[in-house]
Amino acid sequence: MTFAATILTLYPEMFPGPLGISLAGRALERGDWTCETVQIRDFATDRHRTVDDTPAGGGAGMVLKPDVIGSAIESVGEGRPVLAMTPRGKPITQARIREIAGGPGVAILCGRFEGFDERIFERYPQIEQVSLADIVLSGGEPAALAILDACIRLLPGVMGAPDSGVEESYENGLIEYPQYTRPQQWEGRTIPEVLRSGDHAKIAAWRKARSEEDTRLRRPDLWERYSGVRDQSASGARHEEPGRPGK
Amino acid sequence: MTFAATILTLYPEMFPGPLGISLAGRALERGDWTCETVQIRDFATDRHRTVDDTPAGGGAGMVLKPDVIGSAIESVGEGRPVLAMTPRGKPITQARIREIAGGPGVAILCGRFEGFDERIFERYPQIEQVSLADIVLSGGEPAALAILDACIRLLPGVMGAPDSGVEESYENGLIEYPQYTRPQQWEGRTIPEVLRSGDHAKIAAWRKARSEEDTRLRRPDLWERYSGVRDQSASGARHEEPGRPGK
Repeated sequence: MTFAATILTLYPEMFPGPLGISLAGRALERGDWTCETVQIRDFATDRHRTVDDTPAGGGAGMVLKPDVIGSAIESVGEGRPVLAMTPRGKPITQARIREIAGGPGVAILCGRFEGFDERIFERYPQIEQVSLADIVLSGGEPAALAILDACIRLLPGVMGAPDSGVEESYENGLIEYPQYTRPQQWEGRTIPEVLRSGDHAKIAAWRKARSEEDTRLRRPDLWERYSGVRDQSASGARHEEPGRPGK
Repeated sequence: MTFAATILTLYPEMFPGPLGISLAGRALERGDWTCETVQIRDFATDRHRTVDDTPAGGGAGMVLKPDVIGSAIESVGEGRPVLAMTPRGKPITQARIREIAGGPGVAILCGRFEGFDERIFERYPQIEQVSLADIVLSGGEPAALAILDACIRLLPGVMGAPDSGVEESYENGLIEYPQYTRPQQWEGRTIPEVLRSGDHAKIAAWRKARSEEDTRLRRPDLWERYSGVRDQSASGARHEEPGRPGK
């Protein structure tokens, strides 16, 4: 089955871009996925092909017009999830990436300027408002590239080893353990003894412990969820947490 | 001052890619930033130009060799932050993007496969291990593109309106308020009355309230930090809200 990606953008020439190279590029050549772009400007109705207008209520920047975006969305058939890249969206997760990669494809709407007219999301409630990271981009395109890349590598046959990608960061709620490879000695530093022991159980235990330890130190947010210590860890919280907060 | 970006990668042909177009592309042409790539493979020392090897302790995938990556890093001069894109890293923040954009440039090391030999980060503790999002990419390149895009738009003169970008998502710990533009009536939906009132104080208050409301609903993680209600129940917090939020 071919994974059909459609990107709605003012800059179709950005695609496939980096996804035409390396892993995703080879998958594209093989037909594992298709990359269609929709030029949002084609749905403008005036002779200047206007796609944006000033924000109601004032403020800097320009807002993408609902009528133009609406027509662009209507042009995309049904049956695939539609994501809109916006800093107002929910953070994308690896779990959602896996779901999308397991389906027929995805349509991604890329904003520019100050974003979309909010009525778009009232009119098309099926659109998922998605954020890539807590940083502000010049538009949704770099975010769409990252999301597509994450999907494509999960398509059947794309990654070399079929078990690559199973035991990796985020898949189990932890960040991945540290990796080492030859040379054994490098700049006075040695690969940890246990990894050279050949004892698979010990290696697995060490890796699990390092995953947990590094998640705790580097990603307290993930650690809190993983360990379920939310209501006990912070010293002050322990005292005032008699009832558990209803979820 | 020109912002000097250097990307260490196995796929230099991915750059500037989408950053050669639109806002970032015009900035590149003007010389607001420079885009240099370093081919990691050039630092391989054997005749096969090997850059990776199997993970110590076993497991799927390949790990980038410390000696090769070390030489690549040594080739980048000092004076700029060096980021390594890795899912083991700390999530990038808009605050860090602002700091980087205010400096002389950045070097970004892009991993592939199962990542870097951990000794790299012991040997070069100045490297910031950075994660873009909680999704797994085929390599660091799409993440590097997003991070560079976020930096470039903040460079002096790159964005049209100098106050664009000040009042936007994440900058104040909240996601941005919803936007609207003409037409006033669209598909039976009207721009909220207050935005057409011309009353700037009322508009500002409405936007603030919507920013807070949407952050609470969509980004409980940001909301928790913003409101400092971590140790109180959600309902308790609501009671205290009518007062003005500090700042």
